[in-house]
This record gives sequence, C-alpha cells and structure tokens, in this order.
Amino acid sequence: MNEAAETKTQNRRDQLRERVLDAAEAAICAQGLSGLKARDVAKAAGCALGAIYMVFADLDELILSVNARTLARLEAALAAAEPSGDALLTLARVYLDFASREEPRWRALFEHRLPPQKPLPEWYARERDRLFVLLEAPLGRLLPQEPKERLRQRARTLFSAVHGVVLLGLDEKLAATTRGGLETELSRLIEVIEAGLKAQAGR
Amino acid sequence: MNEAAETKTQNRRDQLRERVLDAAEAAICAQGLSGLKARDVAKAAGCALGAIYMVFADLDELILSVNARTLARLEAALAAAEPSGDALLTLARVYLDFASREEPRWRALFEHRLPPQKPLPEWYARERDRLFVLLEAPLGRLLPQEPKERLRQRARTLFSAVHGVVLLGLDEKLAATTRGGLETELSRLIEVIEAGLKAQAGR
Repeated sequence: MNEAAETKTQNRRDQLRERVLDAAEAAICAQGLSGLKARDVAKAAGCALGAIYMVFADLDELILSVNARTLARLEAALAAAEPSGDALLTLARVYLDFASREEPRWRALFEHRLPPQKPLPEWYARERDRLFVLLEAPLGRLLPQEPKERLRQRARTLFSAVHGVVLLGLDEKLAATTRGGLETELSRLIEVIEAGLKAQAGR
Repeated sequence: MNEAAETKTQNRRDQLRERVLDAAEAAICAQGLSGLKARDVAKAAGCALGAIYMVFADLDELILSVNARTLARLEAALAAAEPSGDALLTLARVYLDFASREEPRWRALFEHRLPPQKPLPEWYARERDRLFVLLEAPLGRLLPQEPKERLRQRARTLFSAVHGVVLLGLDEKLAATTRGGLETELSRLIEVIEAGLKAQAGR
C-alpha cells in the first residue's frame, strides 16, 4: 500500500471507531450498562458485528472507552466548580449533581467489572487517576504535613465515602431520601471529616 | 375443608416456601443476583415454575426475602463483634469482613432495585432498620446531645460512607488494593470521623 492509501485506511478505521464508540455511549446513556448489546451497537453504527472487533479488542475495551469519556465529563464538571469557601463540600455537591444528572453513564463506571484475571489497561488507570488530583489540592490545604503518597490515598478514601453516600442515597437504599436531605447529609459528613482532619493536623 | 386439612395445606405451603427460599438463596450465593433464574429455582426446589408464585408474589419478593436473611446474618455478625475499645472501628471491620466473606449475597443487597413505582415492603424496611440501631449506640456516646432522629440519620450516613470505602476497595475501582491496605484506610476514615465528631461535640 502506498502512503496515501494507508492514510485513507487509517482515517476510515478512526471514523469507524468513533461511530462504534458513539453508538455504545448512546446505548449506555439510554439503557445503562446492562442494555449494551454488541448487535445493537453495530446496527446503530452502521457496520457489521465483526467490524466492532476490528477497532476494539473486545466489549470490555469498548465499555472502558465509554467510561473514559464519562471520567472526562466528570473531571470537567469538578474542575469547573467554583468553590464557595469550602472546596471539599463544593466537589461533593458537584459529584452528587453529576451522578443524578448523568445516572446511567455514572453507574456504568462502577457496574463494569473486568474478569478477575484481566488487568485494567494502563491508559484507563491514568484517566481515572487524574480525577483525584482535583481532590488532593483542598485536602493538602487541610493536611499540609501529609506526604504526597498518603494524601493521594486519602483523596481516594474520601471519594469512596462520598460515593457511598451518593450511591445509597440516590438508590434510597437505607431510607426514603429527598435530594435536599441527601445534600444535607453530604454536607454534614464533609463538615465532620474536615473538623476531624483539622483536629488531627493540630495535634 | 376441616381444620386438620387446612393445617396440612398450610404446612405444605410453608414447606414449599422454605424450599423455594433456600433454592434462591443458594443460587444467589453461588452466582450472584444476575444468576438467579426462576426456572432454576423451581428445579432446585423440586416444584413447578408456577408454584413459586403461589408462595411469593413475584421475583422481587423472593429476592427481598433472601436479602432479609442476609440482613439477619449481617446483624448477627455486627452484634457478636467484641468492641476492642473503639466500637465504630470494630463495626466497620466486621462489615468489611462480612462483605468479603459473603460477597455475592452482600452484593445482592445493593444490586437489587425495585421498579420505580413499586414501594419497598414495610416488613423489609423494618428488618433493614434494625441494622442501624447497632450503630446508633456508639454514635450516641460520641454525640450525647444529638436528638434521636438526627442520630439515626447520622448512623445511616456513616454506614453509607463505610460502605463506599468497602465497595470501591473490594472492587479495586480506584486503585489496586490489598485487604490490609483497605483495613488501614477504613481505620483512618473512622479515626477522622471520630475526631471530627468529638471536635463538633466539644464546640
């Protein structure tokens, strides 16, 4: 193949990849992860079923690619938040807002699990880890003495705790919950954690 | 029907109900909630498919009945915990232990969701709410001035936060996580929350 033909083939591949990714994203947003069927994705992308596997190694890679788009949207929402005094509280509220506004694609982030023997691709781990950088800055202001690596770990734990409150709250798993009640509980949790971190830093 | 015949019919129904429930519980423990098929449950219980619906209103009621057994096991585990000084930390560790030891049935508690228009049965809500009573006592010692209703709400939020850390930790959603690392993070979170509650109570 000459160079021009190679470029053309690559362009076609890129376009096909984008169409398949768009179709999978639309399916997840409409019906959640459990509604994703390769056959429907191929149909919506206007390609043969086998063509999906020319541009994605398997369905897991396709789902992780949709999830990476969701991570980018979440990161953008968190980065755009204007902290009104309390940065951690603002981030927690933006997270709740994102989860309820983009519920199916947000759920897909956590519902998708790779088979036990399959490692998470490094490109995905990097995308995901960028999210916690946004949490490390306000945490670092509360814990100026904390070593970088421990701060990173604390950011993940704080994220997990907030995630638990948002998840069980939106599902109304533990009690009937209004959106306002959920926001109040989230604020109280953040207040307690901030008070605790300050008390520990002052020791 | 005379009384003896009625009792016999009732006994048969009770036995059938127990067999169906045992079969559904075994299926959830073996393959998780997504592996539960009414046809397989009927086969394992040695009854016709339609017989399931003579003793359970629908699959949701059957799943909630299995989940109620899981709640009772979790409650027993939490109640049996010998607090080694720090009651909240002990409870959080027992929860992590239960989740990793009984993972499929623990997941089923949270993965099962009723259709939006269907209310949660009151008998199930009562079973679930008993769990939080165990958390309210140690929380009440940290917050002796807190009104009962707010204490109850705080217990739920604390449970949700711990659940988030356990869930994302066991899934290794945010980072590669060892069991020891997860226990450390859980301890740190509880320490921060306790320090925060004490600081707030002392205000």
